[in-house]
Amino acid sequence: MNADASTKRPGGRSTRVRDAVHSAAIALVSERGADQVTLPAVAQRAGVNSSTLYRRWGTVAALLADIARHRGDAGAPPLVGNLRADLENQAVWTLAELSRPGGIAFFRAEVAPDIDERHDGLRECLRRVSERFRPVLDTARERGDAPPSLQQVLDRIIAPLYFRVVFSIPGTDEAYVRELVAGFIDGAPREP
Amino acid sequence: MNADASTKRPGGRSTRVRDAVHSAAIALVSERGADQVTLPAVAQRAGVNSSTLYRRWGTVAALLADIARHRGDAGAPPLVGNLRADLENQAVWTLAELSRPGGIAFFRAEVAPDIDERHDGLRECLRRVSERFRPVLDTARERGDAPPSLQQVLDRIIAPLYFRVVFSIPGTDEAYVRELVAGFIDGAPREP
Repeated sequence: MNADASTKRPGGRSTRVRDAVHSAAIALVSERGADQVTLPAVAQRAGVNSSTLYRRWGTVAALLADIARHRGDAGAPPLVGNLRADLENQAVWTLAELSRPGGIAFFRAEVAPDIDERHDGLRECLRRVSERFRPVLDTARERGDAPPSLQQVLDRIIAPLYFRVVFSIPGTDEAYVRELVAGFIDGAPREP
Repeated sequence: MNADASTKRPGGRSTRVRDAVHSAAIALVSERGADQVTLPAVAQRAGVNSSTLYRRWGTVAALLADIARHRGDAGAPPLVGNLRADLENQAVWTLAELSRPGGIAFFRAEVAPDIDERHDGLRECLRRVSERFRPVLDTARERGDAPPSLQQVLDRIIAPLYFRVVFSIPGTDEAYVRELVAGFIDGAPREP
């Protein structure tokens, strides 16, 4: 099921079909919202036979999850060699990815309970998010800094970002992300 | 759609049917996992005609979301009048609720992209979780303490709990919750 086209030769027909289908799905999700997208509509937009989509992805949710996996981290900001700046940059970029049209829909599709491979989807999603922050911590350690653990970054940066985007909490913007990172890096003990 | 039986007379037939269906669904989710539960199976277990379930809930996801709403906070620990203890108690109880069989499945059903009223579900879910912690902060304020804001509690306690349970991150247990609350209350600035 859901043969992973990324393992095939880049530029091959399978890859071209996947790219066309992904682009069409992303465009339709932006225009209509994820819950109004159907496989035949994606097929039509992509100029691909809808039977191909049913065979290769099966459901819209599986297609969205596949897109989330393939989006990968192209466009992620490069490291600048400063813990605070690098955490901020990765976190701001993560928020932008989640906030773009359909961004959270792709995440929700990936963790949805009705996708067969959902545990794989969850693991893959967590792995991808974690890998985004791991180099920040690794390079800080190589510089001789004592960076936080990846678990702490998950708890203090990534979890609140995802939680706030899933629940559409107002004020979840770049300024909020910078405050989140500042609170994490600087500590600031609470009043007793 | 999905008439809310909680507005009807307690003890009436509608309430009895709802309670029987909820109990049957909770039992089946525990036994089989949420993705193996069907409305006819729930109907059979509950001794209710399956057409009733299709009419009243429509889908398993809508039924699970309804259960999540109705579970409410029965059994939540009483306040003891100490900020740290009250945050710990509510957080430990929230983790226990999420961790019991099907607990996270109910949450995922509530936020799933394929439920029509999903935005209501999200708002209701966030409201319910927030209301669990609001009295802790209100009573601390009444005692003359300077408690954190509800937003801070969302970022520092609730978001990491949900994130870790959704992603099945190992070590998400009562000891972890106590550390989370301690880090939040005591601050502990990070090494530069």
